[in-house]
This record gives sequence, structure tokens and C-alpha cells, in this order.
Amino acid sequence: MQRKIEVCLTPALLHLYNIEQHIVVVIDILRATSSITYGIENGATAIIPVSQVEDCLAYQDNGYLLAAERNGEVVKGYDFGNSPFSYTAEKVAGKTIVLTTTNGTKALHLANKEHNTVVIGSFLNLEALCNWLATEQRDVLLLCAGWKDQFNLEDTLFAGAVVQRLRGRFTHFDDSGVAAEDLYLLARNDLRAYLHKSSHSHRLAELNIEEDVRFCLQTDTCSVIPVLQGDRLVRMTPGS
Amino acid sequence: MQRKIEVCLTPALLHLYNIEQHIVVVIDILRATSSITYGIENGATAIIPVSQVEDCLAYQDNGYLLAAERNGEVVKGYDFGNSPFSYTAEKVAGKTIVLTTTNGTKALHLANKEHNTVVIGSFLNLEALCNWLATEQRDVLLLCAGWKDQFNLEDTLFAGAVVQRLRGRFTHFDDSGVAAEDLYLLARNDLRAYLHKSSHSHRLAELNIEEDVRFCLQTDTCSVIPVLQGDRLVRMTPGS
Repeated sequence: MQRKIEVCLTPALLHLYNIEQHIVVVIDILRATSSITYGIENGATAIIPVSQVEDCLAYQDNGYLLAAERNGEVVKGYDFGNSPFSYTAEKVAGKTIVLTTTNGTKALHLANKEHNTVVIGSFLNLEALCNWLATEQRDVLLLCAGWKDQFNLEDTLFAGAVVQRLRGRFTHFDDSGVAAEDLYLLARNDLRAYLHKSSHSHRLAELNIEEDVRFCLQTDTCSVIPVLQGDRLVRMTPGS
Repeated sequence: MQRKIEVCLTPALLHLYNIEQHIVVVIDILRATSSITYGIENGATAIIPVSQVEDCLAYQDNGYLLAAERNGEVVKGYDFGNSPFSYTAEKVAGKTIVLTTTNGTKALHLANKEHNTVVIGSFLNLEALCNWLATEQRDVLLLCAGWKDQFNLEDTLFAGAVVQRLRGRFTHFDDSGVAAEDLYLLARNDLRAYLHKSSHSHRLAELNIEEDVRFCLQTDTCSVIPVLQGDRLVRMTPGS
């Protein structure tokens, strides 16, 4: 079967792709999709992505945890932000979290079409994700959330890791997939060192989230694939 | 002095950059900016980029040469298209050419702002361009024309070549510049072989323009820098 895997480098380019029937993998490595993966792995019932900080407040009195991050920092008055260390089993098991982030939730909403499937990718669940993508007979779009619609290295590296693992399973690749794979091959022996080249890295250094960055670059510590069902991300169940 | 060099991977991302005071280098390696460089080198008086094939016709009776290309092919009835072999001294010396192409002229028009400087980059004039950029005390945006707003490898590789040569002269780089430079370093020993990985390459192979591709990947065969003045590209003169 002819199958296509493509890489959309930022949400600002998503309109160039027809994703009505695709599997779309949303990628926001630092830190939204890493934290979502970790939270679902740790037993969160669901994570509801919302666009605006204010939208979180509508959920306030229903026992939900509220998570809001803007420009890399927790919004004042919220339970927590985007750090994966907030998504431990102790804090999230059995809970529903309402989340808004700078880039990740925006990408999730843009990706959500009537007949497609939207899942979450991160280095934490790389192998589980690739194993599943390999078995599905569908075209795949890897959607990098980027930074305020700009290209970023960490999301592109992850897209490249997926292309590299699935190369034998697909017949069609785009130029951005070729580039992402080659960048991943350059970087994979020390992802953290490679990201020190990045403009984003300087910004992250200022936010003092080095521990978060290292956490998000761990590979295959989680086995879940969060999938968007209606308005919420839940654990994909076998055969779903 | 603090100076910034950035890479805009496709015209669809240009709105993210403030280019009012910048030097913008427009890059459409296969084949518009290569042919423009070669044509100006060979004594064309000017090349006027227009957006639509129909816009060329307004110039028809004024002794201009008309060049139109869509989807990689010469538009029927026009003098020539986008192939650099049409831009020899014999054909273009002393002439003004009106040109429309799929991607290059669109990028040129988007880049053109009141107070900036728009120049043409190609492998043919790489060194001349970099020498000039090094001496100007201004921020630089390298604008890849891409393919119908999509990322493409050949324009990105050229942007990477410029970043690589100018790294010591600038203090600020963006993630796309880092990526472009690393891809160029991977590819530079055999650019043609590297581009065989590209989706665009398959399309080009179908158009049977292998000679054009090889021509456009030659480095430093031209010494001109075409610059946009009003509505037309002309040879930059010293001190201009």
C-alpha cells in the first residue's frame, strides 16, 4: 500500500495539508505534549485542551485541575502549568485537567477535523507511538507546534525521530520530513547538547527549566498514546 | 555591533518577521533566482518580476522579452521560461526581461517594503553576496521561496550556506538558521546527490531539467548581486 508521512513544521503551514482522513500527531516537546503523555501515563482520566487562559475558568468549580502556561510560565492562580513534574500519579491519577499552553493547545485545535485522528507525540512515548503508526494503514501528518508559529528545533527533531523509525513503512515523504530526519540523525546521540544551539534553548535557560528539558528528552519511558476524543485527550485503548 | 541573521523557510511564514529595515535575500534556487543572477551577470539591463502570467502581456509591445513559467514549464507563446540557459549574453544583453514564475516572483513581491533592500541569492553568486552582506551593518533575512508555500530542501541548503559563511559576522541566529546550516554541512560535498532525497527532485526529474539543476548548483560563477530598485531587478553598483 502507498502511504505518506509528512512533516508540517509549524501550525502556520497547516492549511497547506489535507488532513481530513489523516492521523495527525501533535508535537510540542517543550513541554505540552511531554506533560500530556506523562499525565495520561500516570492515570489522569482526561486532559482538556482549551485555547484561552480565560476558558479554563469555566471549568473551575467542577473538580477539575486547572493548568495554564503562557510564555513558558505558570499563570498566576492556576494549579499548575506545563512542567511534567506537575503531572505525577500523586497529583493527577483519576483527575481531569484543563490545560492551555502557548503553542500546544493551539496546534491541537487546528488539527482537529471531523474524520481524522489526533494523537500526542513526545520522546516519552516515541516507541509506542511508532509501533501504532506502523500498523495503521493511514497517511500521517506530524504537526510541530513550534514557537508562536515559528519553526523550532526540538519539535522538528522529534518529527525526524518518527520518520527515521517508520521510513520502511511509508512510500512518500516530503522535503521537511527528509530534513527533519537528517537533523535527528545529527542530534540523536545527545539531544540536549544539540538543543543548546537553539534560540529556544536560551529562552528556556532564562526560565530555569533545565530539569524539565532533560525530562522531556527521555525516550520511551511511557507506553500510552493520548488521543483526542471530542474535546478531551484520553488514553488510547487497544482496538480503538 | 549586534546583528541578526534569520531564515524564513517559506513565504507563508514571512508575516512573522519584521523586515522593514532589513536586507532580504530572496532565494529560489530551482530556478528563478539562479536564472536572474545569470541574466544580470550576462548584461540584461533589468528583470521585472510580475505576479501573474497575464501581467507580462502588458509589456508585450515595448521590446521586452517575456518570460513565464508555471509548475516548472514555459507558458505557451512566451519567449522563454525559467531555464538559466535562456539567460545567455547572446539572448539577454541590453534587454529588459519581464518574468513571472511559480514561487520566486511571489516571494520578491512579498519581501518588497518601503525601507528595506531586496537582493537575489543563488549558488552562482554565493561568495559575492556573502562578501557584501558581511560589510553591511544591517540585519539579514534569508527568504526561501519554497514550493507553493511549502518548505523545500534546495532553498534551505542555500540559506544554510550563507549562514555558514557569515556565522562569525552575526551574533543572533534563529532555529531555522541553525537547521539550514547543519543541512548544508551535510549536503555540501555533493549537493546534487543530496537533492535526490527531495520530493521536488522527483518532480524535476519528470520535467527533464537535470542540466538546469546541475547548472543552478554551481558555486561562484557570477559576481553580480541583483537588487530590486522600484519594480525591477538591476545589477548592484559599488557603493549603492
